[in-house]
Amino acid sequence: MASQSEHKATVIDGKLIAQTIRSEIAEEVRQLSEKYGKVPGLAVVIVGNRKDSQSYVGMKRKACAEVGIQSFDMDLPEQISEAELVSKVHELNANPDVHGILVQLPLPKHINEEKVLSEISLAKDVDGFHPLNIGKLAMKDREPLFQPCTPKGCLELLHRSGVSIKGKRAVVVGRSNIVGLPVSLLLLKADATVTVVHSRSNDQESIIREADIIIAAAGQPMMVTGHNDCL
Amino acid sequence: MASQSEHKATVIDGKLIAQTIRSEIAEEVRQLSEKYGKVPGLAVVIVGNRKDSQSYVGMKRKACAEVGIQSFDMDLPEQISEAELVSKVHELNANPDVHGILVQLPLPKHINEEKVLSEISLAKDVDGFHPLNIGKLAMKDREPLFQPCTPKGCLELLHRSGVSIKGKRAVVVGRSNIVGLPVSLLLLKADATVTVVHSRSNDQESIIREADIIIAAAGQPMMVTGHNDCL
Repeated sequence: MASQSEHKATVIDGKLIAQTIRSEIAEEVRQLSEKYGKVPGLAVVIVGNRKDSQSYVGMKRKACAEVGIQSFDMDLPEQISEAELVSKVHELNANPDVHGILVQLPLPKHINEEKVLSEISLAKDVDGFHPLNIGKLAMKDREPLFQPCTPKGCLELLHRSGVSIKGKRAVVVGRSNIVGLPVSLLLLKADATVTVVHSRSNDQESIIREADIIIAAAGQPMMVTGHNDCL
Repeated sequence: MASQSEHKATVIDGKLIAQTIRSEIAEEVRQLSEKYGKVPGLAVVIVGNRKDSQSYVGMKRKACAEVGIQSFDMDLPEQISEAELVSKVHELNANPDVHGILVQLPLPKHINEEKVLSEISLAKDVDGFHPLNIGKLAMKDREPLFQPCTPKGCLELLHRSGVSIKGKRAVVVGRSNIVGLPVSLLLLKADATVTVVHSRSNDQESIIREADIIIAAAGQPMMVTGHNDCL
């Protein structure tokens, strides 16, 4: 067992790093606006009244406003049909002022998420969830047009905190399409030795203890904790 | 350290399993032919005179003949231009008797492989190398139209040898687009706890020693060996 000092953790100040990134983006948007007379436009589509989704969407719209990105709000009723939602997506695909489209998940049960997401123009798939983008994310010597935001954020936090990834043992807890899977693919591309553990894994704890980098993306808090003797 | 008896290996008889699978496929082809008056057609495209490529292609064509699959041979000169090759691929896309297209890699250096592969109709991408197929292979609750053959073969060998994968620690050595990456994604989908080690990994040996299942796909033999004291 390693000594206590080796286990000493540095807490990454995510809020501070986010503020730095937002300032950088605000400056980029200002330059774009000056040079081309245009700002990036992000359409955020929400269907129904889920509290958590409304809160996420609210944060995204607020973040857009802060940095000067034009936000296109599309709030649709829970009862909207799949065909109507698809036609709304097509409208946004055709709108030249909209450069990115986010459809907040989950969608109501009567709507096929895969179908709707696949209708978003690849060039506007800023969530990076289209299987073609995930495939390019996975493959050596290919690059997706967009990377999913949470995985990208994880790597950005490591990078801006001065943590080198190359050759390190990284363990990702969880394998969701939205976080676990793409973050494991990004870490592999960044030359980490990557292990993915999940609900079917035996002996999760000992695997996690061997990691240099742990990304906890299991969808529930407190899955990964310190031992009392290390705290 | 485990005792010698625990390390005792069973050699998987790949040739025997392959023969069984070929007999099964021959029977399926016979039934298709009887029912529809048609057999599956596979186009195998080779550019230039690489010895190893010619040997692979020869084996594929021979395997087709054995099971009754119609083989469409397309042998093209080393000097063919990218545009000409793409137009050959389009011809095969349009041929209703061709159900699958294999373009043998590597292609000559003056040809962009990514460009050529992306021109193969998705419905005929039997190699499963199109990024859209790799993306669907990677993603939970999605299925690719085709799985790359070597990774699929690895899982088939495990399955037919009675090795259960769920919850096991699997280590994949190598992360190529053709074997390492897709086999790691298939093992993850089959509920293994998957680690990918590669040329940048530190401490490969100790990671490999902890594995229940090892897939050596580093492109060079004898990377993974037993210790003398375990042999």
